[in-house]
Amino acid sequence: MAASASPLRSSVRMCNGFNGFNGMASQRRCCRGTLRAHRKCEPQSRRHVHLTASRHAAAVLSGTEMARQLHREIQRDVEELVAQGNMRPHLGVILVGDDPASRTYVKTKTRTAGILGISSDTVVRPGTVSQKELLGLIDQMNRDWRVSGLLVQLPLPAHINERAVCNAIAPEKDVDGFHIVNIGKLCLDQRSMVPATPAAVWEIIKRAGIETAGRNVVVAGRSKNVGMPIAMLLHTDRNHERPGGDATVTIAHRCTPRERLKELTGLADIVIAAAGIPGLITADMVKDGAAVIDVGINRVRDPKTGKLRLIGDVDFDGVKEKAAIITPVPGGVGPMTVAMLMKNTVTAARNALTH
Amino acid sequence: MAASASPLRSSVRMCNGFNGFNGMASQRRCCRGTLRAHRKCEPQSRRHVHLTASRHAAAVLSGTEMARQLHREIQRDVEELVAQGNMRPHLGVILVGDDPASRTYVKTKTRTAGILGISSDTVVRPGTVSQKELLGLIDQMNRDWRVSGLLVQLPLPAHINERAVCNAIAPEKDVDGFHIVNIGKLCLDQRSMVPATPAAVWEIIKRAGIETAGRNVVVAGRSKNVGMPIAMLLHTDRNHERPGGDATVTIAHRCTPRERLKELTGLADIVIAAAGIPGLITADMVKDGAAVIDVGINRVRDPKTGKLRLIGDVDFDGVKEKAAIITPVPGGVGPMTVAMLMKNTVTAARNALTH
Repeated sequence: MAASASPLRSSVRMCNGFNGFNGMASQRRCCRGTLRAHRKCEPQSRRHVHLTASRHAAAVLSGTEMARQLHREIQRDVEELVAQGNMRPHLGVILVGDDPASRTYVKTKTRTAGILGISSDTVVRPGTVSQKELLGLIDQMNRDWRVSGLLVQLPLPAHINERAVCNAIAPEKDVDGFHIVNIGKLCLDQRSMVPATPAAVWEIIKRAGIETAGRNVVVAGRSKNVGMPIAMLLHTDRNHERPGGDATVTIAHRCTPRERLKELTGLADIVIAAAGIPGLITADMVKDGAAVIDVGINRVRDPKTGKLRLIGDVDFDGVKEKAAIITPVPGGVGPMTVAMLMKNTVTAARNALTH
Repeated sequence: MAASASPLRSSVRMCNGFNGFNGMASQRRCCRGTLRAHRKCEPQSRRHVHLTASRHAAAVLSGTEMARQLHREIQRDVEELVAQGNMRPHLGVILVGDDPASRTYVKTKTRTAGILGISSDTVVRPGTVSQKELLGLIDQMNRDWRVSGLLVQLPLPAHINERAVCNAIAPEKDVDGFHIVNIGKLCLDQRSMVPATPAAVWEIIKRAGIETAGRNVVVAGRSKNVGMPIAMLLHTDRNHERPGGDATVTIAHRCTPRERLKELTGLADIVIAAAGIPGLITADMVKDGAAVIDVGINRVRDPKTGKLRLIGDVDFDGVKEKAAIITPVPGGVGPMTVAMLMKNTVTAARNALTH
């Protein structure tokens, strides 16, 4: 086992020997509320997954199991809201065209909503719908007080500007968190709707008790809905309005030379693979005792059976022998993503009460 | 000299042997225009500062000299605009209270504007001004067609919400780039007003011909107006609407253990110090041949003379013996920051023509 600190096995040593570079606060002008100065950086929580230091396979973190727990909490929240005399949270979904994957995603979302006591409706428009008509529909649903949260399933046909569509959704109903103002708030550490996948990664890290403060994280992937927000959540200040992870974060991507990626992941206490490349992260790239979160969803054909199957960005079988914690694909980040979307919907319903 | 690639001395080797991790594009849904897939990551430019491989002191990049060149270009742009029958670009400044540093900053800005042919006016309000009155003044200047660009000098008195003030400025006049929509656009790689200091760092890197694609960058400092936007500019895709640097970027901050920071800067082709900690970056932390950009502005008392003097975050004398390129303080990023603010003002004036 490597001598350097892993996020799990050496938490106590790290707590005591902490030696962050002190007083790091820009002396330049700044927007108050987004910057604070001169605080200590002790690890955030003492709640860790305790594992022995002996060599063994990683603890496989079941996202399905974690999502089940989260579902119970959301269900409770929903029923509490309703019991208080409020409207049942309602998720409005707009589905354009007949892409089978999009249809499956929408079905999973609305079915989960139903199970959790969140009502929903899906408005379907043909792939030939004009941008104007789509924006009109969004406007109508923005104004409809019965709709708590609203999402437009992406991708959209080429003739429609997705950014314009994302920005048309009322920010307070924007359960996907893709509106420019929600992105801005996320990046300024303000409370906002956090896109579901990064929110799922964050929730997994917190619920598993994986320490982030002062730890080294590599995020492989820089997409605007996954990699970038994850990097933003993890590197920022835990004492800001929207708490961050206080981790040192490296953002790697397709321009990162492979040997450089290996060098950096070798130093990482937490590796988050969100690149969409099957088998990108292999055992030789990972530090002994690291936490490895696999956000990749890749459909590949099994050479033996000829059937399509889902795999992540991490060579699961190899890496699980070296890591302390690993999330599987499927059954890892995926189920938690849907759960976080539901959580956002309840948040939107709550926000509406105070508006 | 280290065998690994430096951003300057081994550019040709890096161009030929490039081996980025391929096809990194999330297969998840995304907003089109912010994500592209499957491109090669060759270094961006063949224009490099050529230095021999022998050990010598770094080339000291004069920001003053570079700003002078930029001033000439801005002056030309301004006169061109005016010659075309357009209004002379005008910078509106709001100064609250009587903080001497703020007054000095404002004077530097308006004096530079004057030299470049940009007209300006400074509206001064006492430190007791109410937030309501300040927002009213901003609204008035937003509507005033004679004002091309508008900035409120920060920091503001404690009873005023700086975020509310930043968000009150019309995004297209927001030459400081602090409006939530400009931050959101910056983080989505859309064209926007980029805050002047990160824009200055970016401009220095480009003008000095420092290669960023596929290179390793450490940004020490995570402030929302300096460190975070620099990390954003440098890690993003060069082919997006607002081109990025395609670099692998690590964001370090006060929670980064010092020994870990050293480990990471030791791997970095480019080190950007934006922490506000005098002498944070020392020679032993820097790779031979690296580029070191010092964004720190620290006022310290000289133990010999007893006088206040300005120093950066980098131990200049030590690091310049090891780096290939270094920016001094003063006379490095500072003058370029003011120049970039002027450039933003001309951009705002141009934007107004198409509105």
